[in-house]
Amino acid sequence: MTIVAVVGGGQLARMMAPVATEMGITLRVLVESATAAAAAAAHETVVGMPSDDEAVKALLADPVPDVLTWEHEHIPPRVVELAASRGVPVRPGLHALHYAQDKIAMRERMDELGLPNPAWRHVRSADDVAVFLTEHGPEAVLKTSRGGYDGKGVMIIDSPQQAEQWIAAAAEGGPRVLIEAKVPFARELSMQVARTPSGEVRCYPLVESLQRDGVCAEVVAPARDASEELRDQAVRIGETIAAALEVTGMLAVELFERADGSLLINELAMRPHNSGHWSMDGAVTGQFEQHLRAVLDWPLGDTAPLAGASVMVNILGGKRADLVAAWPGVADAGAKVHLYGKDVRPGRKVGHVTVIADDAEDALARARAVADWFRDGE
Amino acid sequence: MTIVAVVGGGQLARMMAPVATEMGITLRVLVESATAAAAAAAHETVVGMPSDDEAVKALLADPVPDVLTWEHEHIPPRVVELAASRGVPVRPGLHALHYAQDKIAMRERMDELGLPNPAWRHVRSADDVAVFLTEHGPEAVLKTSRGGYDGKGVMIIDSPQQAEQWIAAAAEGGPRVLIEAKVPFARELSMQVARTPSGEVRCYPLVESLQRDGVCAEVVAPARDASEELRDQAVRIGETIAAALEVTGMLAVELFERADGSLLINELAMRPHNSGHWSMDGAVTGQFEQHLRAVLDWPLGDTAPLAGASVMVNILGGKRADLVAAWPGVADAGAKVHLYGKDVRPGRKVGHVTVIADDAEDALARARAVADWFRDGE
Repeated sequence: MTIVAVVGGGQLARMMAPVATEMGITLRVLVESATAAAAAAAHETVVGMPSDDEAVKALLADPVPDVLTWEHEHIPPRVVELAASRGVPVRPGLHALHYAQDKIAMRERMDELGLPNPAWRHVRSADDVAVFLTEHGPEAVLKTSRGGYDGKGVMIIDSPQQAEQWIAAAAEGGPRVLIEAKVPFARELSMQVARTPSGEVRCYPLVESLQRDGVCAEVVAPARDASEELRDQAVRIGETIAAALEVTGMLAVELFERADGSLLINELAMRPHNSGHWSMDGAVTGQFEQHLRAVLDWPLGDTAPLAGASVMVNILGGKRADLVAAWPGVADAGAKVHLYGKDVRPGRKVGHVTVIADDAEDALARARAVADWFRDGE
Repeated sequence: MTIVAVVGGGQLARMMAPVATEMGITLRVLVESATAAAAAAAHETVVGMPSDDEAVKALLADPVPDVLTWEHEHIPPRVVELAASRGVPVRPGLHALHYAQDKIAMRERMDELGLPNPAWRHVRSADDVAVFLTEHGPEAVLKTSRGGYDGKGVMIIDSPQQAEQWIAAAAEGGPRVLIEAKVPFARELSMQVARTPSGEVRCYPLVESLQRDGVCAEVVAPARDASEELRDQAVRIGETIAAALEVTGMLAVELFERADGSLLINELAMRPHNSGHWSMDGAVTGQFEQHLRAVLDWPLGDTAPLAGASVMVNILGGKRADLVAAWPGVADAGAKVHLYGKDVRPGRKVGHVTVIADDAEDALARARAVADWFRDGE
C-alpha cells in the first residue's frame, strides 16, 4: 500500500484523487470540512485544520503515509515537525516552500540566482514607497510578503499614503510589505516544472495565462507565437529555480513577457497550479499525476502535448446553483468539463473546461462557450 | 447532486470513479466486499451482493440515484424490480442486457437482424452435436448459453461425447448449450459503441484484440491495415445492434475478421469492456466517461483518437505481490499505467498499461515491456 497524505481539501487535492486511483495510490486528505471539494473524492479523509495537532496526527496515523504534500502554501511549521516525528518525508519541504510563501524571500533569492526580477524593494516606511514611486512610478504594485492569493494582498498604488495601512500592520507584527514596479508587459506566461527528490526535472510547454481581476482565467498551451529563444529562457528560469530551491513536486513560475521578448518572474507556486490544468487533458502526463510521481520520487511522466493547442477556461460561479444539472446542455462533444463539487458563489472558481484542437483560436472560442454555459446558461 | 448507482465492485466500477469525480458525479457502488477494487475509489459504497435485497435497497436509498447501471452481466431481475419501485431507471435495461447474458438469445436476435453469425445451433442432444460436427467440423466451439466469461463456459470439441456433461446439466436445469463453427479467422476485432436513451449513438475506432487463452490480452487501436470497407462493416453492425436492442451505455461487439475481409459476430458486452480501455488515454473521451454520460442521457463525447496508435496491454498477476511498489522501475515516461488495487494471483488481470505513439509496433513493444515489468520484474 502506497499512501500520499495531502494537507488541504480544495479542488487541487480533489484533482489528485482520480490519478491516484488510476496509479493504485491511496490518497489520504486533511480536509477543512466534510463537504470540502476533495472530501468525497479522496480515498481516506481526516476532517480538521492543519493547525490542529490531533487532525494532523490522524493524517499521519497507521498505516503511516509514504509522503506528505500540500495543495496550498498556508502550512504551519508544526505540521512538518509532526511528520518528521513519524518519519514521513514532507515534499516540497519548508526550505523550498518558504519561497512560495514569502514574496520578499523569493525576490531576494531570485536576485541571488541572477534570475530576472522586476524592480522591487522591501518597504519599511512611506518614504521607501515615495522613493520607489519616483524611480519606477507613477504607479507600482504593493504586496504583502505573505498571505496573498488570487488578487488578495496585492494593490496598485500611486501615492505613499495608500501604503500606510499595510506598513502600520507590518510594524505591529503583520506580514512584511514589498513594492514592485508595475511591469508594462505584453502578456503573462507560466512555466510548469516537476522535480523529484532524486533530481529528475521535466518542464511542460510554456503557456499563456490570460488573467481577469488578478486571477488566472484562461490558459493557452503552448503559448502562441513563442520563439525558441523565449521557450529556452523560460525553461532555464524554471529549471534553475527547481534545482536551486530543491523543489519537489510541481512548481509553477508565473512570468511577465515584455515587448522586447524578455521575461520577468512574477510569482512562484509549489503545487499543481491553475495554469497547468490544461495538462490533465492536453498532455501525456497531467500535472496532478506528475505531482504525485514527483513527491513519491517515482520517475516523471512525459510532458508532451497531445494536440497543437490546448485551451483551459475557468468556470466561475454565476447564475446557476446546480452545475452538474447543466451537463445535458453541453453541445460541444470535445469539451473536457471538470466540476469541483463546490457550492456556487458569484465569481468563485467552481470548475474548468479544456478543449484541445489544432488551432488555439478555435479552442478558445469553444472552451469559452462551455464555461459561459455553466456559469449563466442562455 | 447527480448520483449514479453501480452494481458490482470490480475494476470496471473502479475505473468509473475518476471520471465521475472529474464530471462532478457521485458514484455509489454496490461492492461484494470492503476490499473490492472499486471500494476505496467510489464516492459512496454499499457492501453486499446483488442477490441481497437489503444491500440493493441501501444502494437505492435517499438521496435516490439518478440511474442504476452495471459493471457485469450477472444481474438478478429482482434488482430491476427494486429500482423500478424507487423510480430509478436501469441502464442498460434487462431487455437489452438479456442478449449479453444469453448467447442463444443473442444468436437468434443477430439472425433476425440479418447480422453475420458464424454457423451455430442450439444443442439439445449429442445427436445435434454429431450432425453439427459433420457439417462444420472436424472441430467446433461448445458454449453454455449463460454464465461464461474470460474463457469459462467455452470448450473446443471434436466429438459428441465431449458435450455430454453440459447437455446433461442443461436437461437438469443448468444453462442451455449451443455449438458454433470454429471460425478460421484472420484476427479478432472489437467495436465499441455508446448509445443514450435519447438515441444518440457514437462509435469508437475499430480495434484489434489480441487474445491469449481465450482472454483479451492486448488491444491495438485503431486496427492495423483496416480498409474503409472493414470499418464501415463494423460500424454498421455496432450501430444496428445498439439501436435494435435499445442498448444504453457502452456496447462492445467482439468480431472475427476472416481472410476475405468479412466479419462475424463473436460476443456482445453491454458495459465498458477490456477492449476499450485504450480509450482512457488514447481518445478524447474514454469509455468510462462515455458510459456515465450515456446512462445519464447526457450528450456523448467525441471518440476521436489522440494519436496514430494506442496500444493497451493487460497486466497479469505474476511474481510480484506489491504492484504499486514496482512503479519506481517504470523507465518509459510515456506509459500510462493503471493498477486495480486487486490482490495478485497468477494470471489474474490486475491492471493495464496504455502507450500512445505514431506507430503501433513501437507502442506494442513499449506497452509489453511495462506490463512484463509489473508482472515479473527483471
